[in-house]
Amino acid sequence: MKQMLNIKQIQELINTELDNINFIAEPKQLYAPIVYTMAQGGKRIRPVLCLMAAQLFGQDIQKVMYPALGLEIFHNFTLLHDDIMDNAHVRRNKPTVHQKWNANTAILSGDAMMIKAHQFICQCEAEKLPKAIELFNSLALGVCEGQQYDMEFETRNDVTVDEYLEMIRLKTALLLAGSLKLGAILANAPEKDADLIYQFGINIGMAFQLQDDYLDSFGEQKTFGKKIGGDIVANKKTFLLLTAIQKAGSHDKSNLNNWVSVQHADNDEKIAEVKKIYQKLAVDTESKTKMHTYYDTAIDSLKKVDGKQTVKQELMDYASKLMQRTK
Amino acid sequence: MKQMLNIKQIQELINTELDNINFIAEPKQLYAPIVYTMAQGGKRIRPVLCLMAAQLFGQDIQKVMYPALGLEIFHNFTLLHDDIMDNAHVRRNKPTVHQKWNANTAILSGDAMMIKAHQFICQCEAEKLPKAIELFNSLALGVCEGQQYDMEFETRNDVTVDEYLEMIRLKTALLLAGSLKLGAILANAPEKDADLIYQFGINIGMAFQLQDDYLDSFGEQKTFGKKIGGDIVANKKTFLLLTAIQKAGSHDKSNLNNWVSVQHADNDEKIAEVKKIYQKLAVDTESKTKMHTYYDTAIDSLKKVDGKQTVKQELMDYASKLMQRTK
Repeated sequence: MKQMLNIKQIQELINTELDNINFIAEPKQLYAPIVYTMAQGGKRIRPVLCLMAAQLFGQDIQKVMYPALGLEIFHNFTLLHDDIMDNAHVRRNKPTVHQKWNANTAILSGDAMMIKAHQFICQCEAEKLPKAIELFNSLALGVCEGQQYDMEFETRNDVTVDEYLEMIRLKTALLLAGSLKLGAILANAPEKDADLIYQFGINIGMAFQLQDDYLDSFGEQKTFGKKIGGDIVANKKTFLLLTAIQKAGSHDKSNLNNWVSVQHADNDEKIAEVKKIYQKLAVDTESKTKMHTYYDTAIDSLKKVDGKQTVKQELMDYASKLMQRTK
Repeated sequence: MKQMLNIKQIQELINTELDNINFIAEPKQLYAPIVYTMAQGGKRIRPVLCLMAAQLFGQDIQKVMYPALGLEIFHNFTLLHDDIMDNAHVRRNKPTVHQKWNANTAILSGDAMMIKAHQFICQCEAEKLPKAIELFNSLALGVCEGQQYDMEFETRNDVTVDEYLEMIRLKTALLLAGSLKLGAILANAPEKDADLIYQFGINIGMAFQLQDDYLDSFGEQKTFGKKIGGDIVANKKTFLLLTAIQKAGSHDKSNLNNWVSVQHADNDEKIAEVKKIYQKLAVDTESKTKMHTYYDTAIDSLKKVDGKQTVKQELMDYASKLMQRTK
């Protein structure tokens, strides 16, 4: 009988497998940043979802392990290149690759990392390879499209709420959904069920991102981990800000536009004032409603999946746990 | 009967196929640089070699067309990212992507382009996909390794001739050889013949690169196209310079080191003086000998291939034509 693992066991297994991979080769400066990046840890959500989906449809997780690790490598590659583009200096409390080495190294090691991701994805049964690689390439391209929209939004003043939702669908939800679908495909799941688990992933991904946006303004410092109000200070076009601009009357709109267009010395005042406008316009509750709608849609899709009940329950608990900070 | 095309016809067919591909999609700023890059032309050597190899082993070239185009897309992706790393402003008489747009766009569009390359490579018969994709990923990684060595050599003062040869093997020869081998694999060629055509590619690639280095110092302005002496002015560690340093006695060595380490106002004088040392040490003839050795080894491998004689002859003529500027 196949061994069934719970999420915690799967997480540990993923980290053990990653620890056992020797990413280093010559020339060392090409591969060292890959080792560095992969050793930073994280929740390994994408391979966890992939392996859980494989179990959901009765597949031995060892047969899906390498493609699952490929998803994690790909995700870390996107962080590496995004950090150059965003000029981010720190990730997970450590210097980013382009800070520790330099931009050229970060570009080239990132490229090598993307190829490595492909190599891992391709280590699946030959008859499943065409579908697996087609899915992966479409995910990868979608993530690039999401990042492009995200960059463009920084300098655009006419971003709509719908455009924002499409951006986070591409940049965040797609790879989560695709990780689940890859697990399903590699487990020979019927197309109907692979699509349902994909829909679960898309909707849970949207819910996660909206939650992240919400917590950035309305979370508690202690549980959120980052300083509250970062998005407001950076004038980031989140669901909250875009919805507020859409809903605001002329007075609130000019007030908001003043806060997000003028340089302010006192960030705490800015955060407090913008949050006041958000609350006045009820975009905080609107955001929570939207988030819960996505969450409920996700759970509905998962319930319809014809798969192992224990695994479905684990996935439900996992989604709930990832959301529980606001629920 | 399958239609056999000569190299000129294949080149035209490749350009027609590329013209018919609609690379543009949303967001436009992600895809426009791909359209721009692919429209710059060039000799399309890699897909030509791939399709010729397919014909050599009796395969219909239409069945290999998309993977062949994938090689060209990948090659152009490497140029795009290399141009950022080298801070090159012009390629094929046009502004490079990071000049025309910006570095972030060049990084991200390059990433999308690499994924596009994978999508094209994967459009082959399913039973050949595992071998084709394994080969492609190993080529892609090798090219990154070559670029990394090339960058490191700029700041190292102890580069050996052998290290240089390994660098150009990875950066230049590997993808040419792999293009031929991919065509062979997709034509179901026996492993022995796929390896022989690969060896032809490696050796012809080495010969091409050595020729390029030679012509950069000893070519004629009119036929070479670029200004003669660029490598000398840039203190580039080519086969000529590294061999000269290896062969030089203490007087010539300190003379050479002086030329390559001190800033000189008069480039023409520097070019003339360094060339004098090269000629005194006979590294110009040594370079030509080395180049011809690689070339002859290439032709020997090709002769041993069990494939269509007319195609072998075409490939021989093509190699000779690409080399003829110095032969």
